[in-house]
Amino acid sequence: MKAQIGMVGLAVMGKNLALNIRDHGFKVAVYEYAEGVADAFVAVEAENTAAIESAEMISTNSLQELVDSLQTPRVVFMMVRAGDVVDFYIDRLVPLLSEGDIIVDGGNSLYTDTNRRVAALSEKGLNFIGMGVSGGEEGAHYGASMMPGGNRAAWATVKPIFQAISAHVDGEPCCHWVGDNGAGHYVKMVHNGIEYGDMQLICEAYQLLSEGLGLSVDEIHDIFQEWNKGELSSYLMEITVDILAYKDDDGLPLLGKILDTAGQKGTGKWTGIDALELGIPLTLIGEAVFARCLSWQKSERVQAAKILPKRPVAPFTGDKAEMINAIHDALYASKIISYAQGFRLMREASREYKFALNYGDIALMWRGGCIIRSKFLKNIKQAYSNNHELRNLLFDDFFAGVMEQSEVGWRKAVILGIQLGIPTPTFSSALAYFDGYRTEKLPANLLQAQRDYFGSHTYERIDKPRGEFFHTDWIGDGGNTSATTYNV
Amino acid sequence: MKAQIGMVGLAVMGKNLALNIRDHGFKVAVYEYAEGVADAFVAVEAENTAAIESAEMISTNSLQELVDSLQTPRVVFMMVRAGDVVDFYIDRLVPLLSEGDIIVDGGNSLYTDTNRRVAALSEKGLNFIGMGVSGGEEGAHYGASMMPGGNRAAWATVKPIFQAISAHVDGEPCCHWVGDNGAGHYVKMVHNGIEYGDMQLICEAYQLLSEGLGLSVDEIHDIFQEWNKGELSSYLMEITVDILAYKDDDGLPLLGKILDTAGQKGTGKWTGIDALELGIPLTLIGEAVFARCLSWQKSERVQAAKILPKRPVAPFTGDKAEMINAIHDALYASKIISYAQGFRLMREASREYKFALNYGDIALMWRGGCIIRSKFLKNIKQAYSNNHELRNLLFDDFFAGVMEQSEVGWRKAVILGIQLGIPTPTFSSALAYFDGYRTEKLPANLLQAQRDYFGSHTYERIDKPRGEFFHTDWIGDGGNTSATTYNV
Repeated sequence: MKAQIGMVGLAVMGKNLALNIRDHGFKVAVYEYAEGVADAFVAVEAENTAAIESAEMISTNSLQELVDSLQTPRVVFMMVRAGDVVDFYIDRLVPLLSEGDIIVDGGNSLYTDTNRRVAALSEKGLNFIGMGVSGGEEGAHYGASMMPGGNRAAWATVKPIFQAISAHVDGEPCCHWVGDNGAGHYVKMVHNGIEYGDMQLICEAYQLLSEGLGLSVDEIHDIFQEWNKGELSSYLMEITVDILAYKDDDGLPLLGKILDTAGQKGTGKWTGIDALELGIPLTLIGEAVFARCLSWQKSERVQAAKILPKRPVAPFTGDKAEMINAIHDALYASKIISYAQGFRLMREASREYKFALNYGDIALMWRGGCIIRSKFLKNIKQAYSNNHELRNLLFDDFFAGVMEQSEVGWRKAVILGIQLGIPTPTFSSALAYFDGYRTEKLPANLLQAQRDYFGSHTYERIDKPRGEFFHTDWIGDGGNTSATTYNV
Repeated sequence: MKAQIGMVGLAVMGKNLALNIRDHGFKVAVYEYAEGVADAFVAVEAENTAAIESAEMISTNSLQELVDSLQTPRVVFMMVRAGDVVDFYIDRLVPLLSEGDIIVDGGNSLYTDTNRRVAALSEKGLNFIGMGVSGGEEGAHYGASMMPGGNRAAWATVKPIFQAISAHVDGEPCCHWVGDNGAGHYVKMVHNGIEYGDMQLICEAYQLLSEGLGLSVDEIHDIFQEWNKGELSSYLMEITVDILAYKDDDGLPLLGKILDTAGQKGTGKWTGIDALELGIPLTLIGEAVFARCLSWQKSERVQAAKILPKRPVAPFTGDKAEMINAIHDALYASKIISYAQGFRLMREASREYKFALNYGDIALMWRGGCIIRSKFLKNIKQAYSNNHELRNLLFDDFFAGVMEQSEVGWRKAVILGIQLGIPTPTFSSALAYFDGYRTEKLPANLLQAQRDYFGSHTYERIDKPRGEFFHTDWIGDGGNTSATTYNV
């Protein structure tokens, strides 16, 4: 019997995915460029699992051998470094494959590359899938969040395998067809951007509790543990609880010994860039990416701490329990804003890039296996089940209700930070977005007047139909406006 | 006598620059693709200015004719649409030019295109200059801010012409050599990003005064007029004063009739994207670009205003004069943060893209002619005169002092907005940056722990040398850290 799927690339993710596939009773052929790796991997694993009857992996020593070992339509699953390496393998696989065969790229490719590859392979009669995979090594072996998109014709063939090996929540696989072209990698990119936001939000809550209220790491541990039982329940909150509990050799929290410089690269940044390109406010993730950049400027911050005025330090004298609740509400409301912005971005991307995204399914896929998995993704799924065409998550009754309940505490927590000079860039930007979004009249009328003044950019009027544009000679004597109508 | 410079492209900017050059006594040849335009332009202008003896323009009807009319080394100044059109003309000019000749691109080209063109033409023995020009139609004719960069060998030839036609402040031309490669267009891009920020800052001050303190347009006019006499004196403040004074036919402020949807495209967005690429926090301009995007989502905001909880409305009961001063301080401090971020970005770009920028000269160039011209650019020039290698504007005594004086009012103004639900995205993000920048220990240690937990990303320790990386098995029993040293 031939193999049902072939794996190219046996770094840790590829190996674990291959084992995951095998453990679910599929026959998998494996190939790795570095000589001997595939043979050794299969030999060791065969020994480890001699008892498992259904499990079968075969090693191959060339792409030709790999392709020959596959049943048709062939499925070649690549877990290799994003970028040129993906094209390297595609170029070598194309001559070996036949019409209707499928190539899957499971790496962190940029969605524009995936758009290009889907189109190029489609012309050759081949089906290409770009699949975001989140969950790290463990997820790869025991169930990841998997976001496949590209050539939909390939979905029926790979669906049984990918849904079997994905994480499951309430019996539902965390793997659904995401959409056309680079949709899978796009959604994975936004997932990672949201991950940046979620992490920064927890850090800001932590610092308000720590420096604002003067709580100890142990006290904050207990608070987060409590929060993790409620609406803020999430994987990231869960690991934060573990981190806060962890003591170094000297019995003190290890956290206090860790240097405060976080790196950033790739997907978080890409999400912000795409939001700028599409003109969709993604302020929270933008601030989260920049917060990492600022943390990276450690030596400048140390210098600034000496030169610039010290932050106002005052022992907190208010009601601690009430402020802890306020910080909870700030975290929850800001998190909702982040997801609202992220889903709003995906809505625009779906339209602009022709992805045909299904937002409820995306929420479902993120419920298990991945870094941002959380309880409240169920509410997002529900919101899109109620209304597939929801313009913004904030328009959903559940989320609008949460905003109303959280608003007072949210403001209180942000004000605490401002009074004490504790930076809360994502809490603040989320609040500014919320306040801007529900403001019918923003001061952009002044901005339009400025643009018309110095650049004759024209403006629209509230007492005239949209699409009619006016220009004023602002330093004239008034009344000399001219109107033109044209399509922007 | 042959012409000293040839102008390609006779749209409004090209025409006005040609007139400006002529008015300064240089002989200029002009060419325009559209037939007859050059002849007509020169004929009309010759009639207009028959009295001016030194003025001379000659029209040409082909690029060959243009090139033949120029003294050597030839200087061809293009004012054509950025993008493919620039390459179109370069391709046609190259065979007509000789070694040492100069092509200048005065449009809003992306700096990466300019990098490419400088290199490509350099290989052919030609000198390419990418020059940002700010000041609109009026500046083009009567003195613009001009930012040339590229092949430095060309500077001596074009310097007398460009410095003559640029704006002047205190006798100093607003045109200096910016740097190598695409430096000129890069600096123009950052200028435009800063312009986005400056405009949004004024809008936020306006809305706090209007909706927060309940002041009338006339009252705000008087306040801004007063502010414009002091440290906030700037062109944008000046035109805002004019705008606030302008009455519609019905005697009411025209401002109130203008629709609050501002467009955005190009350079503001590019600045944010480049900051993300380089990993330098540029939060204020990012928020300003996103604020325009949010203003653009007018129909969503109208819907949101109905669905979401109303903003807290309360008549202001505090000391109005004190709060007006606080808003002034918020505007001033936030503006300084925006410039600090912008210059910090240029510092990184100069290193990364090998621009060899001179920051003091940049401040000088921006003092006149351009949209962001203002009094306080003199202080920036001074700061870089004092220390060319200043890491951040905030480290300069003058600016550190302003931050100290403004801090209390700044916080007060932002808190006013938060309490009343008036969005101040740029005031808030500037404050968060300031508070983050002067914070020696940010909560990024928790973020690093999270990354190490779920992705084995490793972390550094405060009690160990930089460059030594640790990994912890966070759900183990403690003590089992492993260290590796490597270069990131």
